[in-house]
Amino acid sequence: MGLGMILLTPGPVQTHPDVRAAMNADVAPWNEGFRPVYERIRRRLLAIAGGVEGTHAVLPLQGAGHMLLEAAIRTYVPPGGTVLIPANGEYARRLARLARESGRVLVELPLPDTRGARADEVAAALAAHPEATHLALVQSETGSGIVNDPAAIGAAVRAAGRRMILDCVSAFGALPLDVAAMPELDVACFTANKCLEGMPGFGFAVARLDRLMQCGGNARSWSLDLCDVWHNTQVNGWGSMRFTGPVQALLALDVALDRFDAEGGREPRLARYRTNAARLHAGIAALGVRPYLDAAEQGPIVVTFHQPAGLDFPRFIEALARHGLAISAYFTTEAPSFRVGAIGCVGLVEIEGAIAAIGAALREMGLARAA
Amino acid sequence: MGLGMILLTPGPVQTHPDVRAAMNADVAPWNEGFRPVYERIRRRLLAIAGGVEGTHAVLPLQGAGHMLLEAAIRTYVPPGGTVLIPANGEYARRLARLARESGRVLVELPLPDTRGARADEVAAALAAHPEATHLALVQSETGSGIVNDPAAIGAAVRAAGRRMILDCVSAFGALPLDVAAMPELDVACFTANKCLEGMPGFGFAVARLDRLMQCGGNARSWSLDLCDVWHNTQVNGWGSMRFTGPVQALLALDVALDRFDAEGGREPRLARYRTNAARLHAGIAALGVRPYLDAAEQGPIVVTFHQPAGLDFPRFIEALARHGLAISAYFTTEAPSFRVGAIGCVGLVEIEGAIAAIGAALREMGLARAA
Repeated sequence: MGLGMILLTPGPVQTHPDVRAAMNADVAPWNEGFRPVYERIRRRLLAIAGGVEGTHAVLPLQGAGHMLLEAAIRTYVPPGGTVLIPANGEYARRLARLARESGRVLVELPLPDTRGARADEVAAALAAHPEATHLALVQSETGSGIVNDPAAIGAAVRAAGRRMILDCVSAFGALPLDVAAMPELDVACFTANKCLEGMPGFGFAVARLDRLMQCGGNARSWSLDLCDVWHNTQVNGWGSMRFTGPVQALLALDVALDRFDAEGGREPRLARYRTNAARLHAGIAALGVRPYLDAAEQGPIVVTFHQPAGLDFPRFIEALARHGLAISAYFTTEAPSFRVGAIGCVGLVEIEGAIAAIGAALREMGLARAA
Repeated sequence: MGLGMILLTPGPVQTHPDVRAAMNADVAPWNEGFRPVYERIRRRLLAIAGGVEGTHAVLPLQGAGHMLLEAAIRTYVPPGGTVLIPANGEYARRLARLARESGRVLVELPLPDTRGARADEVAAALAAHPEATHLALVQSETGSGIVNDPAAIGAAVRAAGRRMILDCVSAFGALPLDVAAMPELDVACFTANKCLEGMPGFGFAVARLDRLMQCGGNARSWSLDLCDVWHNTQVNGWGSMRFTGPVQALLALDVALDRFDAEGGREPRLARYRTNAARLHAGIAALGVRPYLDAAEQGPIVVTFHQPAGLDFPRFIEALARHGLAISAYFTTEAPSFRVGAIGCVGLVEIEGAIAAIGAALREMGLARAA
């Protein structure tokens, strides 16, 4: 259940008790009591994204981040349109599947899953594929821990006269993003339960409104049409949602954003995660486990390691659970790996505890250096 | 916020504190601690639906009920296929829009919004439209309070050799449903935050597996493909979900189902709601307010009234909130109305309180008989 366990899955992430406690409420989402909370959340998220009121809007969508990403692709890329995806991880593969099953044409730029995409290779791929109107990029690959730089890649997209869709699900609130400086960016998508340290249930699109105005009718889905999410706000106000969603998760997010502000915002949060990640990297390597990534490619969100030879992965996950640590129960890298989140409401106390749990589990399985 | 208010919206509905308290947990949804809870929820919902293991499956989908309904239409009706919808309320209109925007052809059977559809008129419409492979029906219209009888309408669908999709969102757990007795039923869709008295965040489809096996490739959407939800369970087990969702809402549902069992199941729950609805109907009529529906058409889920002449509706909602009552802040009936939910974790104490609040608000506005 995660009760009594530290979650470094990531995510959902470990949250603060005050964030979870905010969910203990029955909420009438269309009534005046809730609307100001919802409006405030939208304004706060817009500011974190570097968005400009009137140029951008925060468009929430109930459900999983995947649903929001499908909505972004459906809304901004017309049916039959072509999307280029730098394929260096599981979440890029998922973006590709979302686009393909929606009837968009996919061009994948194959890359190793151990490094970020480079602007020059994206520029070359765009030049080779003039039919691609959009590039879709994953900012932080939660499967491996690598980071793609949206500013650098975005510059190549802009120079090529194309548009960009950004999946910043596991990056938003920690890694840099300044949507106002990225005129090529149609939409950036994220959820509350990664670096914002809220609960799952809603996704949020920071959407460019001038482009959105050109995209009516693209989605071919009422549920997943960001134009209709925007239209609803025009008719019913920014405090309105289209369909009943897990509004308790929004109450929790409002508290999580208070904590984000109290920490000092994005940069101090990123610094905490970097400290967590560096300690995980060093501490687990000291157990004799080989990092999956070169140090220069290892991002601050999730830290990944090769599975020690002979590791029984399900037994390892069970052993960690007995020691009070929940990490992801599956891996998505090309070579077998395990990964430990550096994000959530955790600092070095929890990180040292996680390293100790991993060490103990590996020793029980005869797979680590002696302590 | 609903804090300190009774919610008769409906829904989200008023919930029990134990249900909300279950959400105070960080959950790793793919780990062994959570999987048995998720499997148990699916088995419990299948039993309430009258489903048969192996013939039917409970397929959850994160997000709003609308998303699940779109998924059901996309999955079971091929692109370009035709759906007949008895149009006697707002949720029928929404089903129609979900189908139309998904590229399915709509045939609407126009009906007044003050009574349930009759089996003979559905049979005639199906006979007139041999191209309609499916009938999509709303069991309980939350906008008006009327009920469509899925068993009677289903018999007409079966006799015509067609298939049925059922929206039982606001009915499931209270109004009768026996999917095993309805071989014409492809799928029944509902959420946790109506008669099950859980929290919003997930929808559930009770899906016929033999038909699902014939529907691969229909959805044209990965997010909204029930075949893929099923496929995931075959690969990863019934305790697995595809994408991160508001798992706290599932913990809450498990507790809500304990309360459902403790109440004695569907029939005692329905009896409580009928008592609530009858008292609302009589008590509010006694204030001089005219019921929207004939008594024979008034269902037990939501009770609807004509707005008194001259009512300032937003001011009325505000006045009710001051008196501690949240009802829906909008109406969807053909004539102006207001509606009061009879469902949720409420009994006659709360219902009497609601009638008193409505009486007080109307008197303040000079629109009710003296007490």
